[in-house]
Amino acid sequence: MNKIINTIQQNNTFNLYMHVSPDGDTIGSALALHASLLSMGKNSTLICDDTPAKHYEFLYEKYSIVAPEKAQTAPVSIAIDCADFKRMGRSRLQFEKSPTTINIDHHFSNPSYATYNYVEGHASSTGEIIHELLKQLVITINLEIATYLYTAISTDTGSFSYSNTTPKCHLLACEFIELGIDVARLSSQLMNSRSLGKTRLLSLAISKLELFFDDKIGLIYIEQSDLAALGVRPEDCESIVDYIRDIDTVEIAIFIREMNNNKYKISMRSKLYADVGSIAQVYGGGGHVRAAGCPIAGDFNEIKADLISSAERLLHE
Amino acid sequence: MNKIINTIQQNNTFNLYMHVSPDGDTIGSALALHASLLSMGKNSTLICDDTPAKHYEFLYEKYSIVAPEKAQTAPVSIAIDCADFKRMGRSRLQFEKSPTTINIDHHFSNPSYATYNYVEGHASSTGEIIHELLKQLVITINLEIATYLYTAISTDTGSFSYSNTTPKCHLLACEFIELGIDVARLSSQLMNSRSLGKTRLLSLAISKLELFFDDKIGLIYIEQSDLAALGVRPEDCESIVDYIRDIDTVEIAIFIREMNNNKYKISMRSKLYADVGSIAQVYGGGGHVRAAGCPIAGDFNEIKADLISSAERLLHE
Repeated sequence: MNKIINTIQQNNTFNLYMHVSPDGDTIGSALALHASLLSMGKNSTLICDDTPAKHYEFLYEKYSIVAPEKAQTAPVSIAIDCADFKRMGRSRLQFEKSPTTINIDHHFSNPSYATYNYVEGHASSTGEIIHELLKQLVITINLEIATYLYTAISTDTGSFSYSNTTPKCHLLACEFIELGIDVARLSSQLMNSRSLGKTRLLSLAISKLELFFDDKIGLIYIEQSDLAALGVRPEDCESIVDYIRDIDTVEIAIFIREMNNNKYKISMRSKLYADVGSIAQVYGGGGHVRAAGCPIAGDFNEIKADLISSAERLLHE
Repeated sequence: MNKIINTIQQNNTFNLYMHVSPDGDTIGSALALHASLLSMGKNSTLICDDTPAKHYEFLYEKYSIVAPEKAQTAPVSIAIDCADFKRMGRSRLQFEKSPTTINIDHHFSNPSYATYNYVEGHASSTGEIIHELLKQLVITINLEIATYLYTAISTDTGSFSYSNTTPKCHLLACEFIELGIDVARLSSQLMNSRSLGKTRLLSLAISKLELFFDDKIGLIYIEQSDLAALGVRPEDCESIVDYIRDIDTVEIAIFIREMNNNKYKISMRSKLYADVGSIAQVYGGGGHVRAAGCPIAGDFNEIKADLISSAERLLHE
């Protein structure tokens, strides 16, 4: 930490790196540090492989985020919310050119890949760590920086609803509201924004919902042709499994997405008691008790029947 | 306030009233006060016209909520989160039999219909007011009461996302988490629960989405036959207009529900700048800049065309 503070104080030019498919935490955290570095009279460049989703645009209107190929090498590179080196995508080639690298992140699994690493696995979000760093740098948190940090914390905790929500998250939110952030506007723009394609995909997916065992198991299967028909990407399927779980009768939600060559991507959720992680493990997948997934190759009907009977067993345990 | 404290201290038997179609605030607030009265060795009965929705059941497993006809008259009746006398439904007939009545609520418009009224329009929720009351009664907030109060505050603020979210909401949430509430479980059970019928209605509604003016105006029309086909109630349409607004291109969302005899219920939302309240006003409806509604009678196609052209004008203002 002290070495990171010293490095920031003693240098003038920084490259800040977000992870691929940037989310609210990497964007908000990077913007907060960027604005702070500029306020200290330093040079800072925001770098990301991918353009953030449209609903984040309003956050960085004053700044530009550049592709790694367009950035110059800086004496100090800082990776923000990148759980491992690969999370930076192509940007890591630019990152590793800097003589000094810094890694700021909140994932327990982070392998500390930089010269200086500030990894705090107990933090709700990288935004919370950046807040601590700015305090150490004696940066005044103004409304702009508060907006970025609120974005980071509120998006990574699902608006203070996930299990990583700590008392500290709420204390920081309290501080940011006192600084004047517009909670209703931020929340509606950050949390509830959906592309038209994703909206139509949701409708199609629900129309394909199948229920088993007193509606306790819900299953949706989306084929490649469904995605093609709506012109949406595989990533747009991401939260469909949550919609299944949120049906009041459902304990186990299963979402199957067709990939190539008889391969299927399975995502599972449970609500209260079933350990869907145990199903994923059988197929060599990962995750935990309430949320897990795995790829499975083989005959679709067999896979589906196996998943349903495995899920049924969990209902009776 | 002092009179309410004295009334509670000097009496032994209380009826607590929730409003019709009880939500998380009225249920959580009533349960918090109920558990506190019991801990003081007093008698308390929970009364509501309607059985709470299934996803609230886990909250009051230890207690029962009775219909007003089954309750005995108590010396003190306390209405909780009932913005006006009528919000209690049939229960108001039982409420007014008590020689002393108390009204605890957070709606500015509350007309103070009881013997003693504790109405705090600036409070995010009635839960916040109950918390203050329990402090004055020197009740220790334990995990059970914290769970009820968290329910009240988090549901009424849309998990800390609506404009009524204050620094105090976050400070209270911080306190409740320190007492050990299970944020992830509570949030998933309270916030994201949807009946199967409502889920299927959402799918049908999205399939009927029409877009106008570069997808800036989104409109969904649900007929009585749609509701009948899915066996769902008019109330199940409630949040559909929000799904329209949440499409990233949409500025103005219009939801039309067919009622009887050429009458239609219109709900409108806007995202950033359009004043949909001005459209509702023309038709004698109510609401505010970003959320408004009105009933309209007449020919459907004319109504629809009028709404779309009114909305288009707002896009250009």
